[in-house]
Amino acid sequence: MAKKSFPLSKVYALLEPGPVVMVSTASRGRSNIMTMSWHTMMEFEPPLVGCVVSNRNYSFDLLMATKECVINIPTKEIADKVVGCGNASGAKMDKFETFSLTPKPASQVEAPLIKECYANLECRVADTNMVDEYCFFVLEVIKAWIDPRVKDPRTLHHLGKGNFMVAGESIKLKSKMK
Amino acid sequence: MAKKSFPLSKVYALLEPGPVVMVSTASRGRSNIMTMSWHTMMEFEPPLVGCVVSNRNYSFDLLMATKECVINIPTKEIADKVVGCGNASGAKMDKFETFSLTPKPASQVEAPLIKECYANLECRVADTNMVDEYCFFVLEVIKAWIDPRVKDPRTLHHLGKGNFMVAGESIKLKSKMK
Repeated sequence: MAKKSFPLSKVYALLEPGPVVMVSTASRGRSNIMTMSWHTMMEFEPPLVGCVVSNRNYSFDLLMATKECVINIPTKEIADKVVGCGNASGAKMDKFETFSLTPKPASQVEAPLIKECYANLECRVADTNMVDEYCFFVLEVIKAWIDPRVKDPRTLHHLGKGNFMVAGESIKLKSKMK
Repeated sequence: MAKKSFPLSKVYALLEPGPVVMVSTASRGRSNIMTMSWHTMMEFEPPLVGCVVSNRNYSFDLLMATKECVINIPTKEIADKVVGCGNASGAKMDKFETFSLTPKPASQVEAPLIKECYANLECRVADTNMVDEYCFFVLEVIKAWIDPRVKDPRTLHHLGKGNFMVAGESIKLKSKMK
């Protein structure tokens, strides 16, 4: 596998720009993928990520049962698969098979990495106090992987109703911020 | 003012792509601006937004005191002001004056709108249960404004250490999603 371990202290830089992500889960031999845009960083290190996983999704059940998932970050090259996963339910199909995505074993969790995504964040559920009211999970990233060949990932950013903004140019400004 | 009222049911499309935002607050004649990237949609309608406002920030005190703020969405044209506000503390200066930003009265809250931002979301704090542990606020957007002249806003997306991705091209894919 071409991916390299990525420092947990830098994970925020992958999620802060707000990319659409694909959350993979697995339980008792069944795996699933959910497309998600409602996530935010909550702490730098250990990296905490807050996200909404609706209880109408099959991934909600797998996440609650296992308390584990992988956040996979796709780019424009697989935009059709990203939308496909977002429009189908894993209760009725194997999304890896249906959308020709490749599951790869993770190192710390049972949920698989999606090979076609340029970055993968192995996560454990850290807090479920806001699940009942908002379906809001706090995840801790415990292991991160990145494809070092991808320099300017053309991440997808949902604008509603199938419209996506694709990551454009990068600019550098003088800043004291992390 | 050139801005038009914007339907609350469409607010998610402004925040889902993950833009850097500027949070304005005001209390007892003092106002402030905080640059923020750690936010997520939590519900479509009424629109709920979860966000982290560190208790090391002056904005935390104003937000806790008033339970109101405005989320303002800037674009590349004012990137220097966005970074400037992120690197300074409002405890020691008036950021509107320092960074030549124009406060405009909001309709539902005391906190001012930032005129130079293409969209403004007037918010009330809806839930503070996660503030002690994570400085995480749940906000309800109660009024939204947008500049109808801005068609493809070149929003900023933080990549860490002063690097920003600028919103690029938009693509349209067939989708059943909101």
